[in-house]
Amino acid sequence: MKAIATRGASDINAPGAFEEIDIERPSPEGEDVLVRIEAVSVNPVDTKVRAGALGDISEPTILGWDATGIVEAIGERVSDLAVGERIYYSGEVNRPGCNAQYQLIDSRLVARAPQTLDIEEIAAMPLTALTAWEALFDKLRLAQDTSDHGDQTLLIINGAGGVGSIAIQMARQLTGIRVIATASREQSVQWCREMGAHDVVDHHNLVNELKRLDLEDVDYIFNCHDIGVHWDNMVSLIKPLGEIVAIAETKQQVDLNALQGKAASFHWEFMFARPLHDVQREQQGAALATLARLLDEGRLRSTLGEIVGPLNVENLTRAHQMLEEGHTIGKLVLTAMPQN
Amino acid sequence: MKAIATRGASDINAPGAFEEIDIERPSPEGEDVLVRIEAVSVNPVDTKVRAGALGDISEPTILGWDATGIVEAIGERVSDLAVGERIYYSGEVNRPGCNAQYQLIDSRLVARAPQTLDIEEIAAMPLTALTAWEALFDKLRLAQDTSDHGDQTLLIINGAGGVGSIAIQMARQLTGIRVIATASREQSVQWCREMGAHDVVDHHNLVNELKRLDLEDVDYIFNCHDIGVHWDNMVSLIKPLGEIVAIAETKQQVDLNALQGKAASFHWEFMFARPLHDVQREQQGAALATLARLLDEGRLRSTLGEIVGPLNVENLTRAHQMLEEGHTIGKLVLTAMPQN
Repeated sequence: MKAIATRGASDINAPGAFEEIDIERPSPEGEDVLVRIEAVSVNPVDTKVRAGALGDISEPTILGWDATGIVEAIGERVSDLAVGERIYYSGEVNRPGCNAQYQLIDSRLVARAPQTLDIEEIAAMPLTALTAWEALFDKLRLAQDTSDHGDQTLLIINGAGGVGSIAIQMARQLTGIRVIATASREQSVQWCREMGAHDVVDHHNLVNELKRLDLEDVDYIFNCHDIGVHWDNMVSLIKPLGEIVAIAETKQQVDLNALQGKAASFHWEFMFARPLHDVQREQQGAALATLARLLDEGRLRSTLGEIVGPLNVENLTRAHQMLEEGHTIGKLVLTAMPQN
Repeated sequence: MKAIATRGASDINAPGAFEEIDIERPSPEGEDVLVRIEAVSVNPVDTKVRAGALGDISEPTILGWDATGIVEAIGERVSDLAVGERIYYSGEVNRPGCNAQYQLIDSRLVARAPQTLDIEEIAAMPLTALTAWEALFDKLRLAQDTSDHGDQTLLIINGAGGVGSIAIQMARQLTGIRVIATASREQSVQWCREMGAHDVVDHHNLVNELKRLDLEDVDYIFNCHDIGVHWDNMVSLIKPLGEIVAIAETKQQVDLNALQGKAASFHWEFMFARPLHDVQREQQGAALATLARLLDEGRLRSTLGEIVGPLNVENLTRAHQMLEEGHTIGKLVLTAMPQN
C-alpha cells in the first residue's frame, strides 16, 4: 500500500518534509480493524510530531490521526464492527497514522460514522470533537443532560480553531450557559457566530472586551491556544473557584501560584492520553458514537473549513504549511490517496 | 477588650513581633455575631500574614483564624444562633482575627461546636478540617456517600501536618480508597498511622517508596506542602487523568506542561477563597456542622498536638516560632486571654 511519510522535518518549507512510500498492507489482529482511508484531517499534533515533539524521527513515519474510512478486515476479538462499515476515529499518536491508503486502528477507539455527512465533513470531526467532549464533560464536568447551568459563563479562547469551533457548538447544546468565544479577524468572528457563540470578543484586549459585555469574570475558560500567551488574562478573568481547561503547552513560564487566591482549578485535556496510557479506551468509541448521532440529528455540524485535495506529498505539505501559518478557520481535509 | 496584635514582623525571632493592645469591644451588625474567644489555634497563614504576605502591615493587626467561643451578641439578621451557644469557625483572613478576647464573625461561616470535645480539641479543627473537606469533596470530588472508590489510591504529602492529619482521617471514612501518607521522622510516622493511614512513606524518596508498596502511581495527590518541592514527584506519580490538589504556593518554578501528557488536573484549595470573594459562604457553615457531628460521633478525632498556654505575647510568639521551625505534629492551641 502507499502512504505519505516523514523522516522528521522541523521546517515544513524546506524541501523533502514528506515522501511517498510503498509498504506492505498490514493485517488486523486482536482488537484492531483494517480501514481503507477515505478522507483525513490534519491537526496541530501532526505538525508537532513531524517537528520532533515525541522525539527524533529517523525511520519513515506515517502521521495523521483524524480519519474516516471503510472496514476492510477485522481482528479476532472484534465483534461489534463488520467489514464494509464506514467508521471514523482519531486513534493513537504512537501508532502509524492515517496518511495512507490503509491503517490499523483499535476498534475500541472508533464508532460508526455519521450517515448524513459527506466523507470530508466526517473526517474533519473526530480529534477535535473528542477533545472538546472530554474538556467540557470529563474535565469541566458540565452537565450533559438538560440541567440548567443558570447564568454560568464559558470563555473559549481561539474559538475559530478546530477544537474551538466544535466546543462552541457543544456548549450551545447545554442549558443556560453563555458562550463567549475569542476571535480577532472579521472572517473568524463571523465563523464563531455561525458556530453559535453568544458573544465574540477580541483576544488582543480580553479583559476590557469582557467588561464591554458587563462581565468581570467567567465560570469556565476553555483555552484552545498557548496557555502562556493568555495566562495573565486567565488569572484575571477566572471566577473564584472557577475552572480552566487547556490543550496547548507553552514555552513561557507561567505562575501557577497566581491561581491560588481564587482556589481555581487547571485541567489539561489531551485526547491521546487514554490510548497512550491504555485507560478507558472504550469511552472514546462511546463518545464518537454519541457525536455521530448529534451530527446526524443536525444538533452539531461539521467544522470542515477547506478541502485541500487528495492525499499526496504536495497537498499534505501545503496543509501543514497552512496550519503552521495559523489563521486557518475550521478544519483542513484531504481525500483518499488514489488506489492504483 | 484586649488583643494580641502585630505591626508586621518578617522575623519572629526579633523582639517585638507581637504586642498586647486594648481596643473597644465591637458590636455585631447584620450577619455578624460577637464571640467571647475560649481557645484558638495557629496556622501557617498566620505566620505568612504577619510576614507581609497580604501586604505590609502598619496599623496593629489582630491575626488568628481558628477558634471556638461563646456567642455574646448577635446582629439583626442572625436567626439561627443564640447568645450563650458555643460555636467554632475559621473566619475571614481580611478581617480581624481571633487572637483577642472577643471577635466579630460572619454567622454564615460558623457552626455549633462539637459537644463532646474539650475547647482545646475544638479550636484545633476548623481551618484544617474545612481545608481538607473542600480539597477532598469540592476539588477531588471524592464521594461523601458510601460509594465504593474501588482500588483507588490517595497520596497525602505531609501527612503529619495540621491539614494532612485530618485529611487522612476523612479519607479513611470513605469506602475503598487506599490512603498513603508521607512522613519521615519516627514520631510523625507514628502519628500518621494513628490518624489511620494505610501506608506511611518517606517523602525524601517518594517514587521508590511507592514502588516498595507495588504502586507505580496514584489516582489522587493531596499535597499539603510546598508544591515546588514535590512537583517532579507529583508529575511522576500521578496516574493518567489523575487529579492533584494543593494548598501551599512555591517560590520555585514549576513546569505546568509536564502534566499535559497525562491529561492531569491541578486544583488549588484555599479555604479563605469563599469568604474573601464572598461566594457560597453558607457552605462553610454547613461543612463545619457536618464536621461537628462526625467529631461527636467519634468518626473523626481532634488533631490537637500541643496546648502552648494562654493567649499572650510570649505564648503567641512561641507558637509562631514553632510553626516556622516546622516539625510540629498536629495543631498548636492557645487558651483564652484572661478576662481582667
